[in-house]
Amino acid sequence: MPEAVNTQVLLARRPEGVVRQDDFAIARTPIPAPGAGEVLLRHLFLSLDPYQRGRMSAAKSYAAPVAIGAVMECRAVARVEASNDPALSPGDVVLGAYGWQEWSVAPAKGLMKLDAAEAPVQTALGILGMPGLTAHVGMSDIGQPKRGETVVISAASGAVGAVAGQIAKAAGARVIGIAGGAEKCAYVTGELGFDACLDHRDGDFPQALDAACPDGIDVYWENVGGAVQRAVFPRLRDFARMVMCGMIAEYNDPVPQPGPNLMSAVRKRLRIQGFIVSDSWQRLPEWRAVAVPLIRAGKLRYREDVVSGIENAPAAFIGLLAGKNFGKLLVKVG
Amino acid sequence: MPEAVNTQVLLARRPEGVVRQDDFAIARTPIPAPGAGEVLLRHLFLSLDPYQRGRMSAAKSYAAPVAIGAVMECRAVARVEASNDPALSPGDVVLGAYGWQEWSVAPAKGLMKLDAAEAPVQTALGILGMPGLTAHVGMSDIGQPKRGETVVISAASGAVGAVAGQIAKAAGARVIGIAGGAEKCAYVTGELGFDACLDHRDGDFPQALDAACPDGIDVYWENVGGAVQRAVFPRLRDFARMVMCGMIAEYNDPVPQPGPNLMSAVRKRLRIQGFIVSDSWQRLPEWRAVAVPLIRAGKLRYREDVVSGIENAPAAFIGLLAGKNFGKLLVKVG
Repeated sequence: MPEAVNTQVLLARRPEGVVRQDDFAIARTPIPAPGAGEVLLRHLFLSLDPYQRGRMSAAKSYAAPVAIGAVMECRAVARVEASNDPALSPGDVVLGAYGWQEWSVAPAKGLMKLDAAEAPVQTALGILGMPGLTAHVGMSDIGQPKRGETVVISAASGAVGAVAGQIAKAAGARVIGIAGGAEKCAYVTGELGFDACLDHRDGDFPQALDAACPDGIDVYWENVGGAVQRAVFPRLRDFARMVMCGMIAEYNDPVPQPGPNLMSAVRKRLRIQGFIVSDSWQRLPEWRAVAVPLIRAGKLRYREDVVSGIENAPAAFIGLLAGKNFGKLLVKVG
Repeated sequence: MPEAVNTQVLLARRPEGVVRQDDFAIARTPIPAPGAGEVLLRHLFLSLDPYQRGRMSAAKSYAAPVAIGAVMECRAVARVEASNDPALSPGDVVLGAYGWQEWSVAPAKGLMKLDAAEAPVQTALGILGMPGLTAHVGMSDIGQPKRGETVVISAASGAVGAVAGQIAKAAGARVIGIAGGAEKCAYVTGELGFDACLDHRDGDFPQALDAACPDGIDVYWENVGGAVQRAVFPRLRDFARMVMCGMIAEYNDPVPQPGPNLMSAVRKRLRIQGFIVSDSWQRLPEWRAVAVPLIRAGKLRYREDVVSGIENAPAAFIGLLAGKNFGKLLVKVG
């Protein structure tokens, strides 16, 4: 039997600058009832991702903001508890549940059934889901790393960066990670197999970047912005590609920082291009077909940072924005 | 008989900020003698182009700087006066002569023979040469305007902008020019057929841009930088392309201005890409095959701004950097 209560995390107010615990509120509401064609979902894992910071602000972005008092946005993996649709049965595990909460109802049609024998179900939120597809799309369409090129990946131990770097490595590139702290850097080189990893907190980070990339940088995967972008940009080589995926270090800035002067885009024939994975959801099967065999063969590595309990989601999210997570951040709720 | 003297314009010193007349020096040297396989060339037209500002500076760019005391760089159309190669005869007119001077010698092999019956020979420096090819390559490879899109062209009456806008117009786009002054704007709409043209010197230029592009901008052809770029950038639409061709308004800046924050490249999936036409010289025949019939049919218009006399080249070039020319700037020397 379901518990009597659905614990939810609501957006209490729009953050000003740094996100704070009291920008969120906890609500306890009745378990919803599924309507025709719908299923009742018990959430197992919630996915916390940097893009959710954008949804907390009213500023124009590529998706509508979360309303004040509404449930915070995320994707989740969930177990079907009751079904009003023949396509899904109780016990099925699906991707596509929604929101920082323990329960939800959803139309069966929009849910993707997961096979735990293929991979742990929560990978549908990480390497086999949005972050993995992000890395695949950005590297295929924009980065296009070639054998012998130098590829630099910021937030290299994160859910997207770790995969982006492994894709570049498989393409024969020299791959340099950037991460925060010695432990993450050791993981990036030791576990993920990058050629080097630099700690952006080191005082001599720009010099370390010169030493690691003596001929400059052919592909830069931008997850971070800020001081890391300012160090990388002047080191881009002729014909370099800058894959604009995110700029997490600036998400709490109340006023945007100035960017680089773009004349070097002419001189160096740079391609600076942004993308959003939700434009390419239809390519998820393409990515899973590539990734599942590699994961099984141990050739594509990933790491999860799992926090337990819905009440801990706000603190975990605040930590994510400060780079405190280590691997794909998940909240285990079921 | 050739005159006894070759008048040349030399780079006297590297400019600091704004280019000045005394950054140049006039020299009078003997007419050179062609060696084996070479021809003696009487220059007819010199091409003055914004990229030559870059060659005056020692800063790293995509081509080596002109040395102090050396002849200023340019391409020229010239008449063969003497030939040591069977491929060319006295009287032939060629593209490929070199330098702000009245005479030169060059290997016959590197010269392209021009046919005055096809088009006026000086068009090989303009619409049928480097500037025209620039517009063709940038629009084909990066801008890719589609029917119904809004395309904004800066320096719209200039040698590159005028062609870029006509290409976009032919592709079915709505084309908005930006130029300096009412006379140029009248030419851009009246002669070139753009849908509108805005004077960037008007105090309400940003508001005029909003009015001319109520749904935003899909393609921006960047020739200018500075305040024009700052007005255009926030008005780019989702999936917009920014064709980075040049930033002439900033070429005299001793310190680069900050650029736009690049987070909008993510949010809007922008593609900001630079190119240099010299990477694509091999496509000149492709462009000429497109352009010659259009010019003959009156469907592709161009305008030349011709200054007479080599001694007037420095002042004309200084005017070019200030937007004082009106059409492709040429110096008639022969």
